[in-house]
Amino acid sequence: MKITSKKELYVSLLRDIYSGEKQLTKALPKMADAATSPELAQAFTDHCKETYEQAQRLEEVFRILGEKEGGETCEAMKGLIKEGEEMIDVTDEKTRDAGLIAIAQKVEHYEIASYGTLCRLAKELGFKDQATLLHKTFDEESSADKKLTQIAEGKANRMAAVA
Amino acid sequence: MKITSKKELYVSLLRDIYSGEKQLTKALPKMADAATSPELAQAFTDHCKETYEQAQRLEEVFRILGEKEGGETCEAMKGLIKEGEEMIDVTDEKTRDAGLIAIAQKVEHYEIASYGTLCRLAKELGFKDQATLLHKTFDEESSADKKLTQIAEGKANRMAAVA
Repeated sequence: MKITSKKELYVSLLRDIYSGEKQLTKALPKMADAATSPELAQAFTDHCKETYEQAQRLEEVFRILGEKEGGETCEAMKGLIKEGEEMIDVTDEKTRDAGLIAIAQKVEHYEIASYGTLCRLAKELGFKDQATLLHKTFDEESSADKKLTQIAEGKANRMAAVA
Repeated sequence: MKITSKKELYVSLLRDIYSGEKQLTKALPKMADAATSPELAQAFTDHCKETYEQAQRLEEVFRILGEKEGGETCEAMKGLIKEGEEMIDVTDEKTRDAGLIAIAQKVEHYEIASYGTLCRLAKELGFKDQATLLHKTFDEESSADKKLTQIAEGKANRMAAVA
């Protein structure tokens, strides 16, 4: 497919992140299973639920646009999920959670960048309702990233306290 | 390789982003060639130079640690660069720059997440000099991301002004 207008670029990027969210809904339960702390497992489970809602929000954007969701595979998310699977394989119980948080924050930042661009393009195209929907997800991804930092720092402080 | 300590996790993540930076030094000149505006081409060329310095900074971290740089391939960066190549193929002259900026901001956010984690781990491990080196790169990646937003918004405003 050739991209010859800003709207076509916008739709293509929407399809990319939609593929990313769909891949994530399958990967997050595995990350929750692999996490050793109940706090991190719960954060992944909560974020999986949020990811389903974010995918539905994208479906709403496609509905407003009158465009189909499918047709793109998000190669970067595929790579990120592969990194996550490798991390689960190579870490032991002591290092698993820190490793999973590292990968999960890369995923969040991929999404922050994607939704940041999409919000900008939606505004430039005059799609106010879509910009509002996309901004809601942007805020959720930013919060998810901050939550992971808090969990990582909390764990490190507890480990330092008993060292 | 099994990861059984925080230091091993840190070294593994350093190798991942080192592979990422090396891949980027090859991809950025192609992105500069593909950009249609001299401003964006210059930003990619400048960032390529910065990326070489960031790779050297990582080599300095490996030297301090007494560890080798090699052995990991950053799968996510591979995916991101593939997305960049596809973007160059599918966009026309009107949409090329906006598409390239979208991918480049995903790359910057991948690096922001990576260096954020590495700074945190370096501090937790008591590696103050390494944390300082890594923080310098973290700041550069954040600035590169902001610069790309400015270019994107500046272009959009100019396009709106002549529309």
